[in-house]
Amino acid sequence: MLLEPEQIILIIEAAGTFAFAVSGATAAIRSRFDLFGIFVLAFVTAIGGGTIRDVMIGNLPVNWLTDTLAITSVIAGFIFTLLIYRRMKKLEGWLFTFDAAGLGLFTVMGTQIGLEAGMSVGISIALGTITGCFGGVLRDVLAGTKPLIFQEEIYAMAAVTGGIIFTLILNFFDALFVAQLTGIVVIVFIRVIAVRYKVGLPRMNVD
Amino acid sequence: MLLEPEQIILIIEAAGTFAFAVSGATAAIRSRFDLFGIFVLAFVTAIGGGTIRDVMIGNLPVNWLTDTLAITSVIAGFIFTLLIYRRMKKLEGWLFTFDAAGLGLFTVMGTQIGLEAGMSVGISIALGTITGCFGGVLRDVLAGTKPLIFQEEIYAMAAVTGGIIFTLILNFFDALFVAQLTGIVVIVFIRVIAVRYKVGLPRMNVD
Amino acid sequence: MLLEPEQIILIIEAAGTFAFAVSGATAAIRSRFDLFGIFVLAFVTAIGGGTIRDVMIGNLPVNWLTDTLAITSVIAGFIFTLLIYRRMKKLEGWLFTFDAAGLGLFTVMGTQIGLEAGMSVGISIALGTITGCFGGVLRDVLAGTKPLIFQEEIYAMAAVTGGIIFTLILNFFDALFVAQLTGIVVIVFIRVIAVRYKVGLPRMNVD
Repeated sequence: MLLEPEQIILIIEAAGTFAFAVSGATAAIRSRFDLFGIFVLAFVTAIGGGTIRDVMIGNLPVNWLTDTLAITSVIAGFIFTLLIYRRMKKLEGWLFTFDAAGLGLFTVMGTQIGLEAGMSVGISIALGTITGCFGGVLRDVLAGTKPLIFQEEIYAMAAVTGGIIFTLILNFFDALFVAQLTGIVVIVFIRVIAVRYKVGLPRMNVD
Repeated sequence: MLLEPEQIILIIEAAGTFAFAVSGATAAIRSRFDLFGIFVLAFVTAIGGGTIRDVMIGNLPVNWLTDTLAITSVIAGFIFTLLIYRRMKKLEGWLFTFDAAGLGLFTVMGTQIGLEAGMSVGISIALGTITGCFGGVLRDVLAGTKPLIFQEEIYAMAAVTGGIIFTLILNFFDALFVAQLTGIVVIVFIRVIAVRYKVGLPRMNVD
Repeated sequence: MLLEPEQIILIIEAAGTFAFAVSGATAAIRSRFDLFGIFVLAFVTAIGGGTIRDVMIGNLPVNWLTDTLAITSVIAGFIFTLLIYRRMKKLEGWLFTFDAAGLGLFTVMGTQIGLEAGMSVGISIALGTITGCFGGVLRDVLAGTKPLIFQEEIYAMAAVTGGIIFTLILNFFDALFVAQLTGIVVIVFIRVIAVRYKVGLPRMNVD
C-alpha cells in the first residue's frame, strides 16, 4: 500500500527536522555548551528558518508554537545526538541525506507559504531559501562561528534552484505534490553532487 | 501597611530590568564599546527576551514600546553602571540578587503571557524561559562572546523549573499571585544554590 | 525642472540602500564569504534595520517583501561591489556620502513610521535609530566581528540627533518634507564632521 502525499511530506518533515536538530546539537557539543545549550541549539537550528519566515510575513504565532511533530522531532534529534555523538562518524552519510531532505522540504514549503501569502515569485523563493538555510545561520551565530553556509559548497544555491523548479512546475502544471517532490529531489541531488565533487561558489580574491 | 500584589510585581520588574540593564552595560564596557554601545547593550539585555517572545506569539507592537517603567529602569541601570563601574565588585551580591529576581519575574510573566495567548503548557514554559534568558543571549552575541547561559551554572534550568512550579500552582489552586511569587522564589532559590555550590549542567566530553 | 519631494526621497532611498548593500558586500568579501554569502550580507545590511522596526511595531509583512526599489538597489549594490571591489579605495568618498544619506533617510523614515504607528516621540526616535543603524549591527554579527557602530565615531548619535530635529520641525511647523530633508541633512552633516575631525563618543577606562 502506498503512502498518501501528505504522509510522505510529514515523514520528510520529521526526518529533516531531526537532522537539523542533530546538526545544531553537534555544533553545540563542539562549542562545549552544557546540556541546556545543546538543546537550545538543536531547537534553534531546526525551527529558526521557519520562525524568521513566519515573523517576516506576519504568520503569527509562529508555526512551531503549535507544531507537535516539529517539537517531537527536535527532542528526538537532541537525545539521539547525546547517545550517539562519539560514534557519529559512521552515521554521517545518513545525517547528510536527512539534512539534504530537510533543506529540500523546508525550502519548498517556505516557497509555497510565501506564494500562499500573496508574495511575488522571487520573494517567495527568497522566503523558501531563508526557511531552509537560516536555522543554520542562527546556529553558527550562537555557537560563535562564521556562518558555514556563506563559505561552504553549494548549499543555498541548491535551495534557490529547487525553489525555482518548484514554482515553475506549480505554475505550468498546477500539480502541487509533483512540484513539491521534484523541488525536494532537485535540492537533494544538487547537494549530493556538490559534496561528492566538492563544488563551491567562487570567492573574490582579497589582496 | 502592606503592598498590593500588583505593586510587588512592579517593584520586582523594575529591580529585574535594572539588573539586566546593568549586566548588559557591564558586558559592553568590558568589550570596550562606546557610550552608545553601552546603552544599546543595556537595553537589548533588559528587553530582548520579552521582545523575542512578543514577536513569536504576535503580541505586537512589542511590549517595551509602550512600557515606561521598563525604559526608565533601563536608563537607570545604564547611568548606574557608568557611575559605579569601578566599584562594582562591592555590589556584586546586590546585582546577583536583582538578576535572579529579574530572571524569576520575567520567566513567570512570560509563561503567564504564553498561557493567556492560548499556548500549551510546555510551550508557555518555553516562552517563559525565552523571556528570562534570551536577553542575555542577545547581549553575548552582540558583545562577540559565546552565550554565557549555554555554558554556565544552572541558569536556564532554574527558569524552566520555576515555570513548571508556576503552571502547577496556577492549575491546581487557581491563585495567580501565589503562583507568581512561588515561581519567582523557586527560581531565585535555585540560582543562589547553584552559584553558592557551583552546580552546573553536565557537558559531553569531546574527544 | 525641479523634482517632486517624493522623487527626491526615492532617489535618496535608492542611493542609501545601494550604499548599505555595498558596505555589507564589502564586509562579506573581507570575511571571505562565497558569492551567496556576499549577496545575503548585502541584503541583510540594507534591509535589516527596517525589518527589525517593522517586526517590532507589527507592520507585517515587513516592508522589503513588497518594495521593488529596495530589492533592485540591493542587487545593484551587490553587482557593483563584485565589479569594483579592487578599485574601491578611489570610491570611498562617494560611498561614505551615500552611506550618510542612507543613514539620514532611514532614520527619518523610521521615526516617521513610528509616529504614524502611534508611538511616543522618544520611542519613535529610537525606532528611527534602529532603522538606520541595526542593518550594520546584523552585518557585523553575521560577519563575526564586533558591531562597528558600538565602537566607532559618532554614528548612532548622528541618527538620534537627526531624529530629534525631524520631530521638532514636524511638531512646530507641520511641514513633512522640510522636516524630512532637514533631518537627513543634519545627519549627513554630523557624519561628515565626525569623520573629518575623528570625533568619537567617550569610553570607560577599564582597569
